[in-house]
Amino acid sequence: MCSHVPGTLPTSQRAQRHQRARRSGLVLVKNPHLDLMEEDVLYHLDLGTKTHNLPAMFGDIKFVCVGGSPNRMRAFAQFMQRELGLAAAGEDVADICAGSDRYAMYRAGPVLSISHGMGIPSISIMLHELIKLLHHAKCRDVTIIRIGTSGGLGIEAGSVVITDMAVDSSFQPRFEQVVLDDVVVRSTELDKDLAEELLACSRDIPDFPTLIGHTMCTYDFYEGQGRLDGALCSFSSEKKLEYLRRAYEAGVRNIEMESTAFAALCGLCGLKGESYLKPKCALGDLSACCTN
Amino acid sequence: MCSHVPGTLPTSQRAQRHQRARRSGLVLVKNPHLDLMEEDVLYHLDLGTKTHNLPAMFGDIKFVCVGGSPNRMRAFAQFMQRELGLAAAGEDVADICAGSDRYAMYRAGPVLSISHGMGIPSISIMLHELIKLLHHAKCRDVTIIRIGTSGGLGIEAGSVVITDMAVDSSFQPRFEQVVLDDVVVRSTELDKDLAEELLACSRDIPDFPTLIGHTMCTYDFYEGQGRLDGALCSFSSEKKLEYLRRAYEAGVRNIEMESTAFAALCGLCGLKGESYLKPKCALGDLSACCTN
Repeated sequence: MCSHVPGTLPTSQRAQRHQRARRSGLVLVKNPHLDLMEEDVLYHLDLGTKTHNLPAMFGDIKFVCVGGSPNRMRAFAQFMQRELGLAAAGEDVADICAGSDRYAMYRAGPVLSISHGMGIPSISIMLHELIKLLHHAKCRDVTIIRIGTSGGLGIEAGSVVITDMAVDSSFQPRFEQVVLDDVVVRSTELDKDLAEELLACSRDIPDFPTLIGHTMCTYDFYEGQGRLDGALCSFSSEKKLEYLRRAYEAGVRNIEMESTAFAALCGLCGLKGESYLKPKCALGDLSACCTN
Repeated sequence: MCSHVPGTLPTSQRAQRHQRARRSGLVLVKNPHLDLMEEDVLYHLDLGTKTHNLPAMFGDIKFVCVGGSPNRMRAFAQFMQRELGLAAAGEDVADICAGSDRYAMYRAGPVLSISHGMGIPSISIMLHELIKLLHHAKCRDVTIIRIGTSGGLGIEAGSVVITDMAVDSSFQPRFEQVVLDDVVVRSTELDKDLAEELLACSRDIPDFPTLIGHTMCTYDFYEGQGRLDGALCSFSSEKKLEYLRRAYEAGVRNIEMESTAFAALCGLCGLKGESYLKPKCALGDLSACCTN
């Protein structure tokens, strides 16, 4: 992927190292410049390789759960602590990134719970730094799951959608990343085995409607998702429903704002990733126009 | 801009109303559906037209300052309280959006201070709801200023950049907004008089280097801004500097992640807007390749 940077390994040797790392379950970084840096400051997480002993702090992490809201991610860490029998009910968890107010990070045993804010740019910054954190900490076989809310599309109220593929606003399974001023297209496939495993877990819980489907990712909440209540709206209710109907027919079952970047970054760095989202609202009544 | 929505005013009458609103200094919303709604819930701000008396709470607001970090926007509100002689030093300010952890909002007299998170999607959600808030509150002659950090380009360390125009990663003064699955191109010009006014204010302060220039807005912090320390990096240091040199020659003096959406939304809704950013780091040593 990278051209040869002076002072680093040539591409063929790096490719071999990546293959070994992938087989070993380590998290990959694909940046030859990192080898040349004396210190790596994970600025937005308020962590760094010289200021913190990252292998000691995070080396045993096996699961990372990420979601938009800091309060919800704290509540999730508290829930995990109770589930794992690690703390008394109501005991608080410490924010590992308390020195930064960009993201919040909590841990409960082998589980990290991190907030990522809203939208692709915000989750991307966090994921770049999280991936480097897991790499520096020499974590192995890490599973990452995005949990959160979304808008549902033609599905039963209260259902949870497990994403098999993240698609863009044209329903294509791709993430267009601008690198300097070039556009690079990246794959947005998620881990199919993990999706099936999560679905099986859901089936063990009574009254927990869960399905696997495509998740559409947009850059805008109001005009991009067909909402009629933004400060700007130039389309009719009919035009909105026609768009959502086309999305449904393309396999989309929910809409949010981070999944394509999440899928692309996890895929490139060897993280087993999945997105597990509970639609909070129905984006339109598709009962009249959906075939199933 | 909008096609006729049944039950609302036809386009010609809405255009006349917009012209009157613009002359009167009111904040414009360009959404005919809002007239039909019994209640407008500003979900991410935890405010609404039925739950809050917005004209009483916000009708006298004249300035809105927005920035990424909630802590900094609280500190800014405390600073404004002291500057305006409204509170004793160290007195705390209340977060008006405390019921939501998406954004934080504080007020100091006629000044609102609001955080917007990182990136275009995050600031866009906040601006849609803020614009509707100012509209419902019947605020007049509101000036909005984005304050915050950025990466500097070939400028003296510690300088502040006032944006005359926000440009995208191809150095074009445009914001491409996806509306459903169409791409709409919007202008990103900011208020030139306000820029000159802010520059004049800066000159009254000793040792406060300030300049007017273009601000480039990217969707990505690492690969999009030429950083060599992300989890992924596929370009050389030379390629990065060549890109930043081209940006400098196109008039770019700093780089951040919100300005094009900020300029486009403020411009469309009749808000006098400006961006006033202090570069926190130099994105590359351009001394060897910049002509001035």
